[in-house]
Amino acid sequence: MATIITGKNTVYEAIQSGRKVFELYVLTGTCYGVCSAAKKNGVVVYEYDKQKLNEILPPNHQGIGAKVADYKTITLEDALNKPKKNKLFIILDSLEDPHNLGAILRSSDAFGVDGIILPKNRSVQLNNTVAKVSTGSIEYVDVIGVTNLNQTIKKLKDNGFWVVGTDADTDQTISDINIDTDLCIVIGSEGKGMSRLVKENCDYTVKIPMVGHVNSLNASVSAALVIYEVFRRRGI
Amino acid sequence: MATIITGKNTVYEAIQSGRKVFELYVLTGTCYGVCSAAKKNGVVVYEYDKQKLNEILPPNHQGIGAKVADYKTITLEDALNKPKKNKLFIILDSLEDPHNLGAILRSSDAFGVDGIILPKNRSVQLNNTVAKVSTGSIEYVDVIGVTNLNQTIKKLKDNGFWVVGTDADTDQTISDINIDTDLCIVIGSEGKGMSRLVKENCDYTVKIPMVGHVNSLNASVSAALVIYEVFRRRGI
Repeated sequence: MATIITGKNTVYEAIQSGRKVFELYVLTGTCYGVCSAAKKNGVVVYEYDKQKLNEILPPNHQGIGAKVADYKTITLEDALNKPKKNKLFIILDSLEDPHNLGAILRSSDAFGVDGIILPKNRSVQLNNTVAKVSTGSIEYVDVIGVTNLNQTIKKLKDNGFWVVGTDADTDQTISDINIDTDLCIVIGSEGKGMSRLVKENCDYTVKIPMVGHVNSLNASVSAALVIYEVFRRRGI
Repeated sequence: MATIITGKNTVYEAIQSGRKVFELYVLTGTCYGVCSAAKKNGVVVYEYDKQKLNEILPPNHQGIGAKVADYKTITLEDALNKPKKNKLFIILDSLEDPHNLGAILRSSDAFGVDGIILPKNRSVQLNNTVAKVSTGSIEYVDVIGVTNLNQTIKKLKDNGFWVVGTDADTDQTISDINIDTDLCIVIGSEGKGMSRLVKENCDYTVKIPMVGHVNSLNASVSAALVIYEVFRRRGI
């Protein structure tokens, strides 16, 4: 199956990373670099005027699009088998907004996250919007598709992971996360935070310390702050 | 002048914070809490069915909207005159996306930023989308409207501020920011970063350390990481 993706960085990174690209669509006379990289890889390049591009591509396409192989998730087993000490996984518990998932992929690439765990139901999935907002990071971050978060948490624990929830209702802060271990951090959904059972199954929960009146952050901001905290304290 | 705002948190915080609310529009039989708070403040409440609300409110209104007094910026002088040691201001240099501004207001409220400096030209301004994404934080963060960023930077320096740019092309990181002073951090625009002259006028620049392939972050994520770094190291 194939997906239409759009946006300069997204298409560029798809080609760079070796994703199967079936066709490339660009505004006539633009995007020389990407076109030449694509042609080298044997991709058929179609040059169209603005009107035609607007017809065949989703909005805000930045004058470039491509038909590429679908984004695939990997299994938890595959992710666990990768040889790496002190892995960092992120569970996204019922995230809804593709812009948040895209931004979280971008932060995950930047700060060396080893895998994003995404439930196959009641959650945003990998699509063109996610790919575009990720500015191509989607090519480099392992996304692990799972059917049941609580069984996943059990399996992670069985494999030596500490599973840490994020929740405002706790005394410990993100500075208290023990970073010297395989670690999985759970980020809740935009409106409701973590689901009850997931929260109960966490080894412990931490909050992002805050002052102020509103006392909540955008989900992709929360995720970035926790991920960066681990990244910073582990050293680069 | 008046603005139509929508969204439960946004409307709730507008009422809570004492903003002038002219009229409140809700889906018939819902939002009892907000309606009763509004009525106590003498606001006229209109209950409408879904179809009528869809006609008079912008999309994604969550069944609630209000006509409120316009969001106002304050002057740099007013912001400088507020008595506080070690202020933290954020300059947003040509930010374009209202979602980013909304998320930055949310992080600024959470981490005690003393003022967001927003150029009056070539920049997103305060509007309904910003208010909604800010989930009401817009009521609590001072936004400083300025006409010329470089004159603003000069005035900040004359008032003892250190002005710190964020840019990938530097050796110092956000851990190197000297926090024991009045501080103004500059966040660049989504695509292009800081403008050349603004960058030259900064006292020094710092980067957010990263690994990975794509090496850039969402603007609201970058802003949150820098703001949180200062907040964390200053102690709560």
